[in-house]
Amino acid sequence: MLDEQLLLECGLIRPTSSGLFTILPIARRALNKLESHIIACIEAAGAQRMSLPSLTSSTLWDKTGRLEEVGPELMKMEDRHQKKFLLSPTHEEAVADLLSDVGPMSYKQLPLLLYQIGNKYRDEHRPKHGLLRAREFSMLDAYGLHTSEDCARTMYSRVSDAYAQLFKRLQLPVHRVSAPPGSMGGSMSHEWQLPAAAGEDELATCPRCRQAALDGDQRCETCGGALQWLQSVEVGHTFILGTRYSLPLGAFYTPGTGGPQPILMSCYGIGITRLLAACLEHLSTDKSLRWPKLIAPYDIIIIGPKEGSYEWQSIGSDEMDRLYDVIAHTQPDADIIIDDRHHLTIGKRLVMADRMGYPTIIVIGKAYLESPARYEVYRSTRPDFESGTQTTPYSTPAALLLTEAELLSHLEGNDEQLIKSSA
Amino acid sequence: MLDEQLLLECGLIRPTSSGLFTILPIARRALNKLESHIIACIEAAGAQRMSLPSLTSSTLWDKTGRLEEVGPELMKMEDRHQKKFLLSPTHEEAVADLLSDVGPMSYKQLPLLLYQIGNKYRDEHRPKHGLLRAREFSMLDAYGLHTSEDCARTMYSRVSDAYAQLFKRLQLPVHRVSAPPGSMGGSMSHEWQLPAAAGEDELATCPRCRQAALDGDQRCETCGGALQWLQSVEVGHTFILGTRYSLPLGAFYTPGTGGPQPILMSCYGIGITRLLAACLEHLSTDKSLRWPKLIAPYDIIIIGPKEGSYEWQSIGSDEMDRLYDVIAHTQPDADIIIDDRHHLTIGKRLVMADRMGYPTIIVIGKAYLESPARYEVYRSTRPDFESGTQTTPYSTPAALLLTEAELLSHLEGNDEQLIKSSA
Repeated sequence: MLDEQLLLECGLIRPTSSGLFTILPIARRALNKLESHIIACIEAAGAQRMSLPSLTSSTLWDKTGRLEEVGPELMKMEDRHQKKFLLSPTHEEAVADLLSDVGPMSYKQLPLLLYQIGNKYRDEHRPKHGLLRAREFSMLDAYGLHTSEDCARTMYSRVSDAYAQLFKRLQLPVHRVSAPPGSMGGSMSHEWQLPAAAGEDELATCPRCRQAALDGDQRCETCGGALQWLQSVEVGHTFILGTRYSLPLGAFYTPGTGGPQPILMSCYGIGITRLLAACLEHLSTDKSLRWPKLIAPYDIIIIGPKEGSYEWQSIGSDEMDRLYDVIAHTQPDADIIIDDRHHLTIGKRLVMADRMGYPTIIVIGKAYLESPARYEVYRSTRPDFESGTQTTPYSTPAALLLTEAELLSHLEGNDEQLIKSSA
Repeated sequence: MLDEQLLLECGLIRPTSSGLFTILPIARRALNKLESHIIACIEAAGAQRMSLPSLTSSTLWDKTGRLEEVGPELMKMEDRHQKKFLLSPTHEEAVADLLSDVGPMSYKQLPLLLYQIGNKYRDEHRPKHGLLRAREFSMLDAYGLHTSEDCARTMYSRVSDAYAQLFKRLQLPVHRVSAPPGSMGGSMSHEWQLPAAAGEDELATCPRCRQAALDGDQRCETCGGALQWLQSVEVGHTFILGTRYSLPLGAFYTPGTGGPQPILMSCYGIGITRLLAACLEHLSTDKSLRWPKLIAPYDIIIIGPKEGSYEWQSIGSDEMDRLYDVIAHTQPDADIIIDDRHHLTIGKRLVMADRMGYPTIIVIGKAYLESPARYEVYRSTRPDFESGTQTTPYSTPAALLLTEAELLSHLEGNDEQLIKSSA
């Protein structure tokens, strides 16, 4: 299990109060990348971005009955005129109210898929596991608007495909599991679960078929094998809501013939800060962070000699900048950082870089003084991703010693040849 | 003055409660672009992004005295354990507390410039002018951390340059005006004011020198000419705060010699939703929206014939998609949209497109049936930007009739030649 302390030591987050966290620049970089992949996937499914206020009038939640149902988990406040608001944990009421306010749309304007990215609030009784269960957290929430159950199911499967695409890109074995709709209401619901030791949910999987099972089963539906239970984190949720919100809040559309009908709604959530924490939890060890390749805060770190050392005097500090420029030129999409804590030894910074989980670590040290000059290169690999449901930490192999030409070829992904040549 | 109703009619925003707004997809596109330009400018000044929680413990604001000073404008709430929080209007306390929590940084780690983009809250007594004075609004807020006043001033001027660069890119005549620090405290402060009729501030400018004046002056400092007073909107604010927050909250650094010293802070804000509204206010008329070129939600709209019309039957609906593809191929950065409300006449959609302020409107109509086939092209121009402080609406000239080759050349900016050839 990932030690929460590691996230603090690595400078990713700082708690400010129980269940509230500052996201520091390193983690923010990863969140930016994660957000951009989430946006790309949901927009590929036809979604349009909007922003609803975090403050929602309590009256709307009263009308759907959720003010009482959700109860003490709601963060409530009053403005200076004693008008009551919620810091919304989700926005079904706000979306239904928007559609009511706009007035009945024509059936020709539907279906529509609207999404937002923003902070959500839940007043957890006992927040724990850091960003996995925070009181203020970032989410993608998307809302589908439909004229029929068929239309809703088509959209539902399109967004489900977008989710699957996202998790595939991130190389995360997230499983879609049927779920009861709970207080959300509606006709269909799935949870999207990522195996991780700190998870509060349990996921039944078949070690042979690598499939998640349906609730309550003892044996795999496909192969009949005994199921294995794993801790997991719910990173997403999808629902077909029907008219649960549109009816009490008056969100109607005009069909081809006849009077206005209630809009059928579906909704789709991904906990963004939670997904970040769950990725780290899934991939890291208690000693070292590991990131999905696509969202690592930096791709490459360059570590130079210790200030004042023999290597420092022989190589000079310009070499770090030169190497940075060369790599940046050949790998324009790579995020590269120079570790400028030159007062620390290479060894100490190497340990820190490994703990932080930089996918590629390049050391300019002793081997650079030999002929030909070589860099020490460490690259995290993740050989067992295909095993699916298992928690599969990356491993960092021993250093490769590479000349500049070999390094550049290696970074371009021509690994096989290089591993042979350096073997 | 921009009619607020126009923003509603054009589907940009919807009010949800007094001073609270849903940002609809069209306006959200503009906000995304605006945010990306703001991020580029502040990061070019060396800033690193982070995220602080919107909820800040009231205790911190009590320690700096601002809980009482700011008073009823603060949105306050209590969690289920009766712990008091603010929905923060600004984050100086939170940043100082973060630095205190991290422990004294070495003077070698400073200066540092941290920023975030997120929602802020202010419980205005009477919210008005839509997004210009909302209760929940989006802001960039950046915080500089320094060891000396000199260091703070260097950073201050670097960020001021970044602001100037941003407003220049957006082609907005924003003026930097000295301001009293007010409840923020500190040694230096400037407001960044954009002339706009709905603005609640007043700005003295010299019509000859195009410079904003210092408070209270009657004559221009440079040329001695009589000053002119304009309504304006504060779109940004910059402060050198000194130790106003670091001292009471224990944010210290370790100097080269001697014990810990309080960190000097500076801070920098840009109201993002307010800037969007102020741009529109500055550039639009009461009939038609106009956008800064860089943040227009779409660059080009294509309007085809009315469904069932003679042109529709002769040209076919594929021509719109074909033209879209051709333009998308030659102008890969352009955001293009097809107006698919084919049941409306060209004339009606042309009026709506002009009102929405699409920078380029392309009509496939009668002239496309002549030989050679020509498009009607309308492009907003803004000849008088250089006049500086004036509210300078764009104007839409009469249609150009262009063949496909002429259209593509025109979009690539080879305007002079084309204006000659079509004259």
